[in-house]
Amino acid sequence: MKQVTFITGNQNKADYLAKFLGIEIKHQKVDVDEIQSLNLQEIVENKVRHAYEIVQGPVLVEDVGLEFKALGGLPGPFVKFFLEAGGNELLCKILEGFSDRSAVARCTFAYYDGQELEFFEGSLEGTVADAPRGENGWGWDQVFIPIGYGGRTRAELNPVEDEETYRMIKPFAKLKEFLNTK
Amino acid sequence: MKQVTFITGNQNKADYLAKFLGIEIKHQKVDVDEIQSLNLQEIVENKVRHAYEIVQGPVLVEDVGLEFKALGGLPGPFVKFFLEAGGNELLCKILEGFSDRSAVARCTFAYYDGQELEFFEGSLEGTVADAPRGENGWGWDQVFIPIGYGGRTRAELNPVEDEETYRMIKPFAKLKEFLNTK
Repeated sequence: MKQVTFITGNQNKADYLAKFLGIEIKHQKVDVDEIQSLNLQEIVENKVRHAYEIVQGPVLVEDVGLEFKALGGLPGPFVKFFLEAGGNELLCKILEGFSDRSAVARCTFAYYDGQELEFFEGSLEGTVADAPRGENGWGWDQVFIPIGYGGRTRAELNPVEDEETYRMIKPFAKLKEFLNTK
Repeated sequence: MKQVTFITGNQNKADYLAKFLGIEIKHQKVDVDEIQSLNLQEIVENKVRHAYEIVQGPVLVEDVGLEFKALGGLPGPFVKFFLEAGGNELLCKILEGFSDRSAVARCTFAYYDGQELEFFEGSLEGTVADAPRGENGWGWDQVFIPIGYGGRTRAELNPVEDEETYRMIKPFAKLKEFLNTK
């Protein structure tokens, strides 16, 4: 398999990726701005092309978004700004004026080696809790209720369910299959 | 005065700038991505530097944001995505869960000529209406209620009041003074 560099400054993210792919993967922090867009594919394409210019070898980037149907897909990739501004409480409260609390958790990876550009996407449907619940997880896990798990938030799932839903949001299977061909 | 190019693909914006500055100003559409940030200054700095590389002469860019205090400054520069997703109704409704509906309308210009980098900022405090009101204006004018105008939205102001508040949001005076020194 060709050497691929996963672009992240977050050791946990890198460890998680290696664990779930079951392969060793280099990672590197590269200072690349993210462009304003609601389209994850646009964001990661821009990111992976810039990262390639710096690394000069095959690179892999990812971005995640939490899309509220009532908000036409917002906050989407901007969810990190909402978490920073007011945590999970804020995510719950901006939906108070709406009856539809459905949401999609989405993750898109982009791979680029200077020639081949590939995208891998995972997603999971669910709803947004009225208030944060649960002790596990991170990010918006305390408010995202995946369908099929009895109304519990991801932060209330047991480790098996947590991994199961994580594998739906993150396109590990497709990614692994692709990287094995390299 | 040195020739400055205002970066916009919007003829109305260009005409408005020329009118309010009382000077002729060239404008040009340049395809520059905006970076994800809640800080207008960061966004316009990135934009003006990229625009300069393309235009190879003094350039001027601007960005605007509508900052909700209850949302820690969001949607800010992302307000355009909210308008696109659900119009002014959406902006009103995301605040339904909050008692504080105060907001700041802000506009930042950046000038760059390859050496000198300057920022010009205007802002106006106000609140967000419960529902859109008024026939005038554009963008979020139907929901932004500037303080000092009897609770009317910008879209309900008469032309004199409209210009008055516009000149507070947009830093035309500072900008004109600066450009006159060039």
